[in-house]
Amino acid sequence: MIIIMEPHASDEQINKVVNRVQELGLKAILNKGEIQTVVAVIGDETSKVPSTDVFDELSGVFRTERVQVPFRLASRTFKKEDSVYEIIPGVKIGGNEDLLVMAGPCSVESEEGIMQTAHAAKAGGAKVLRGGAYKPRTAPRTFEGLGELGLKLLKQASKETGLAVVTEIMDIRDLDLVCEAADIIQVGARNMQNFSMLNELGKSKKPILLKRGMSSTIDEWLLAAERIIHHGNERVILCERGIRSFDSKYTRNVLDLAAIPVIKQLSHLPIISDPSHGTGKTAYVKSMTLASVATGADGLIIEIHPDPENALSDGPQSLKFHQFYDLMEEVKQVRSLVKPMYSPKKSPAGV
Amino acid sequence: MIIIMEPHASDEQINKVVNRVQELGLKAILNKGEIQTVVAVIGDETSKVPSTDVFDELSGVFRTERVQVPFRLASRTFKKEDSVYEIIPGVKIGGNEDLLVMAGPCSVESEEGIMQTAHAAKAGGAKVLRGGAYKPRTAPRTFEGLGELGLKLLKQASKETGLAVVTEIMDIRDLDLVCEAADIIQVGARNMQNFSMLNELGKSKKPILLKRGMSSTIDEWLLAAERIIHHGNERVILCERGIRSFDSKYTRNVLDLAAIPVIKQLSHLPIISDPSHGTGKTAYVKSMTLASVATGADGLIIEIHPDPENALSDGPQSLKFHQFYDLMEEVKQVRSLVKPMYSPKKSPAGV
Amino acid sequence: MIIIMEPHASDEQINKVVNRVQELGLKAILNKGEIQTVVAVIGDETSKVPSTDVFDELSGVFRTERVQVPFRLASRTFKKEDSVYEIIPGVKIGGNEDLLVMAGPCSVESEEGIMQTAHAAKAGGAKVLRGGAYKPRTAPRTFEGLGELGLKLLKQASKETGLAVVTEIMDIRDLDLVCEAADIIQVGARNMQNFSMLNELGKSKKPILLKRGMSSTIDEWLLAAERIIHHGNERVILCERGIRSFDSKYTRNVLDLAAIPVIKQLSHLPIISDPSHGTGKTAYVKSMTLASVATGADGLIIEIHPDPENALSDGPQSLKFHQFYDLMEEVKQVRSLVKPMYSPKKSPAGV
Amino acid sequence: MIIIMEPHASDEQINKVVNRVQELGLKAILNKGEIQTVVAVIGDETSKVPSTDVFDELSGVFRTERVQVPFRLASRTFKKEDSVYEIIPGVKIGGNEDLLVMAGPCSVESEEGIMQTAHAAKAGGAKVLRGGAYKPRTAPRTFEGLGELGLKLLKQASKETGLAVVTEIMDIRDLDLVCEAADIIQVGARNMQNFSMLNELGKSKKPILLKRGMSSTIDEWLLAAERIIHHGNERVILCERGIRSFDSKYTRNVLDLAAIPVIKQLSHLPIISDPSHGTGKTAYVKSMTLASVATGADGLIIEIHPDPENALSDGPQSLKFHQFYDLMEEVKQVRSLVKPMYSPKKSPAGV
Repeated sequence: MIIIMEPHASDEQINKVVNRVQELGLKAILNKGEIQTVVAVIGDETSKVPSTDVFDELSGVFRTERVQVPFRLASRTFKKEDSVYEIIPGVKIGGNEDLLVMAGPCSVESEEGIMQTAHAAKAGGAKVLRGGAYKPRTAPRTFEGLGELGLKLLKQASKETGLAVVTEIMDIRDLDLVCEAADIIQVGARNMQNFSMLNELGKSKKPILLKRGMSSTIDEWLLAAERIIHHGNERVILCERGIRSFDSKYTRNVLDLAAIPVIKQLSHLPIISDPSHGTGKTAYVKSMTLASVATGADGLIIEIHPDPENALSDGPQSLKFHQFYDLMEEVKQVRSLVKPMYSPKKSPAGV
Repeated sequence: MIIIMEPHASDEQINKVVNRVQELGLKAILNKGEIQTVVAVIGDETSKVPSTDVFDELSGVFRTERVQVPFRLASRTFKKEDSVYEIIPGVKIGGNEDLLVMAGPCSVESEEGIMQTAHAAKAGGAKVLRGGAYKPRTAPRTFEGLGELGLKLLKQASKETGLAVVTEIMDIRDLDLVCEAADIIQVGARNMQNFSMLNELGKSKKPILLKRGMSSTIDEWLLAAERIIHHGNERVILCERGIRSFDSKYTRNVLDLAAIPVIKQLSHLPIISDPSHGTGKTAYVKSMTLASVATGADGLIIEIHPDPENALSDGPQSLKFHQFYDLMEEVKQVRSLVKPMYSPKKSPAGV
Repeated sequence: MIIIMEPHASDEQINKVVNRVQELGLKAILNKGEIQTVVAVIGDETSKVPSTDVFDELSGVFRTERVQVPFRLASRTFKKEDSVYEIIPGVKIGGNEDLLVMAGPCSVESEEGIMQTAHAAKAGGAKVLRGGAYKPRTAPRTFEGLGELGLKLLKQASKETGLAVVTEIMDIRDLDLVCEAADIIQVGARNMQNFSMLNELGKSKKPILLKRGMSSTIDEWLLAAERIIHHGNERVILCERGIRSFDSKYTRNVLDLAAIPVIKQLSHLPIISDPSHGTGKTAYVKSMTLASVATGADGLIIEIHPDPENALSDGPQSLKFHQFYDLMEEVKQVRSLVKPMYSPKKSPAGV
Repeated sequence: MIIIMEPHASDEQINKVVNRVQELGLKAILNKGEIQTVVAVIGDETSKVPSTDVFDELSGVFRTERVQVPFRLASRTFKKEDSVYEIIPGVKIGGNEDLLVMAGPCSVESEEGIMQTAHAAKAGGAKVLRGGAYKPRTAPRTFEGLGELGLKLLKQASKETGLAVVTEIMDIRDLDLVCEAADIIQVGARNMQNFSMLNELGKSKKPILLKRGMSSTIDEWLLAAERIIHHGNERVILCERGIRSFDSKYTRNVLDLAAIPVIKQLSHLPIISDPSHGTGKTAYVKSMTLASVATGADGLIIEIHPDPENALSDGPQSLKFHQFYDLMEEVKQVRSLVKPMYSPKKSPAGV
């Protein structure tokens, strides 16, 4: 950590900074410049200085810059090898495992629909069934999911097909219910910084699919993962799902695919891509799916629906089954070509 | 609502759209252009079409545009007059009431500190004491508030000074506890789209201070307010606290002051400004406080601390007591000058 | 075009709108809703209403929405088939042509350097040599290129290797000089809305590589292309090079790869990707290059340098020659797999 | 400047960094941490290291952070006192001078119109007449200004009223023409990083009104000012005109008013606000004008038009004359109240 003093900071102000560094069990080195002084902090800043406010608030301090990344448990420094999790027996994600495909409707709408979709997901090669029982909706008075019934239907579809289930939690009071049906618990973009929810999920045993917040930085996202791990649950899967930009006319969000190699370099956690929410339009799902695979993503989460035109939510971004089958064929080809290009003999993110 | 068809949409596709419009109890008018057809939807779209997906997903549809705003209960169309609430006897916000100042520390840290601060807040003219018992912190392993003890200390400070209390709720399971201490319940920026929390707060009797999400549009913000009102609680106060931009080197956020006249035009709800979080630096709090008052805001929420250099959170943006007193003097002058400029005889937002 | 009137617009205000529509040679249809009236405008709005201000300014108008895209000559509606250009004999871009690779240093620095790099570009399979003679630099007092000498060296390298040359124009007064050396003239992101420059380039005979502005919407970008075409030069190549976001800690920009299928759907113009500026860091260039190819881009522009550590500009994002050779091998494989997936038998952008 | 090495940087890599620091005439201090080494650079980094690429490109370097601001001539460190310029005899801007109001139409449209508007501007208290002879328009085939005739009409209006003239330059080849009519030359947001234009304006003798680019950081903006000053013209006036955000439904841009106190702290240059472009809607101009004055801005630039409904450009944001007169009365009151609050006895930006 580097503490940059203001041009005219007094010796007294500088001493106060040095004292605070030492109180935290760290070492301070003064770099006296012609114009201003910079205090370098030596030691484990990530653990000992969770927030830089402790220095920013001191008078005479201009700015503080972290040298180390602000997360520790989620970092490659903490753990060099890729994390690999077994979701259900035989279904793994991360490292050299196969690309893990999660597919299904935005919301569970009916028994017939979810069964049909589960079979289609399986036929296309997915190992995980996605489906919302509780749906985040910007506007009230909108279909918000079947709730408990939705969870039961997911469970039933899972039994029938052998697929694992991923579903979103919206209210931490539903955790037990959700855990009964889900093999992976999804945290939506809007809850990525719902800290009390993250704390509770840290006590759960299920893997967590942590979607990136709409305007979350890479650091904030990894800090949210860190929070879950810190509270006891090591199995976090990251999911890039598009960020907010100044232009949403043609795509709902901007799918930030560079986040995939960035995360691979900074962290040992697996990362998947959501081209359905990332674009918001069926017409662009194919290109962005193939591009996601080309970056070396560990998995995909894709919306499919037997009849997107009559879906109760997010129809515009759902693929029909035959579109999904075709796309999965193409995905397999790109994956088999690209995977060896990112083999462990090569650097994780680099050329 | 306007449904724009693709240039080569078939008659069958257009008919399907018209049918769906009619199924929803609305009327469709076709506007056949040379290049493409536009279907105008006549009727109460806000209630009957909460999400435009219902049309976007149909084949042949290019894009859907709402004509009416997507919120209803929160709109000026629904209620023309400014909403005015009595927080505690004698303390009101909205319409022609006095500017309501909320002041206090970011977090409650100790009995002595909060008592001292409450007296300073009152001395400066604040009617509401702010203070966090539960603090949202990006990184785990950081001071996250005194919790229940913090709530007790706020209650005690309130009794001693007669100030009302505003404090943030982080976990809906704490609602009863929070209600015991708080006169206004604050929803932080990170929870603005925590829909299960908003639903519960809709059942509460306390006024809700709804901070704008870091990258929330005006429509999303008013829809979050709408959700609370829809679930039964009409007393929502909006709070502009800065949005995320591409430049956070000198200010933490960009305080979007134009949101104040925009909200005044669209909605009857009161709106206040948070220049402390909006800038993140003491040096800019004064200017942005005065600017907020000049836009006609209904109130302010400002961080003050007896000793910002030793605050456990957000020290860099807290004012010292004497700075707060000086600023409040200036605020009063600007308010008394500006208030008549926005009198009801003039249009709410306009020149 | 749709003109949405305010809820309480008078008949007189509506009539004024209708009159203005008719004055422009267009037809107006009234859609009288319960709450507000919507005027649908029928006819060629793209040509006849270049700016919606003509309606927005009328009293009683709430908002105007275009139905048609705002560009015409650059649109797929105007021209269905992909545009294909021959840059120099034997080197083409667009449609079913081979992926066109442009490679070279950020700036031309010396004769030896550019010759060496040109040979390496050719060896890796590039057909176009990139290199800056004039460099846009945020700060003054920085190396701003060799100018005329740089152009001569590019010309010389082109003669020796048979590569075409692409170089950036910074000042329209240099157009003749630049045209002597360049086969493609590059417009940088900072000049994407330098309208007087675009107008002049419209009179030139050389293909124009139009980089997307840092915060340009898709519409603004295609309107900049439209301007060049409108002034007489049909050969515009678009280049996605990353947009500005709220997080630039790990990547300089956010490479918006979904722009590629979006452009393919909206326009007939070829589009390439710039993974070097798009990420700003060598470590991420490989992943984003492969992802760009997977989206169906028509070409790539990549920075390479014999000794990136001693480059005078943009060293951190340049590949070494051997990295470039390896990457080009991988690019060929992905391209040969992906190209048939986007064959004309399939829809341009869709699944 | 701080150079942060990667966790496993070798001694050789560190030495290479130290050598490069020394070659640049600066001093390096090593701060060896437990995890990584930080090299502090002592000396005048602003002059000697215009771009941090010189270090970023070295292998083993993780990241570089400037300690000093990247601009020098534009900084408060270089010049403590506010810069004050005399535009024409008796008309000054900056420091303790009166608020300088610039008013006029977006474009000059006719002799009658500009004369009438100039008299209204003067009647309202403006000292400078604004008006575009060349207009930047996103779409071609739109009214782009009267050009040379427009300049003549401005000159004529200036003679008749005694107002100074500010007008935008769009093509550097028009510099002589523009200089004949203009007392202040305006650089529009789209040309803020048109470096060849800035270089030429540095050789001019006229004050330059430098609008902030749509997505320019504060540093980039001050570096653009620095470029003009570096090339010889010290008289730069900054103009905040709104930045691009994720929400443009109700306001065209987000007027970043905190930029005013930030600039006041970092720089000695005067800064004005443009509430017309900053909001894009007449209804919000009043609030944002008053807020601008409340932050301590040195001036305002406001669009007025005799008949906004028939303006050829930007009608929706122009005030009618009577609206302008009323607003100017209110501006005077707020200014007279606020100015003493920012007197030199108080800190420039602080509370």
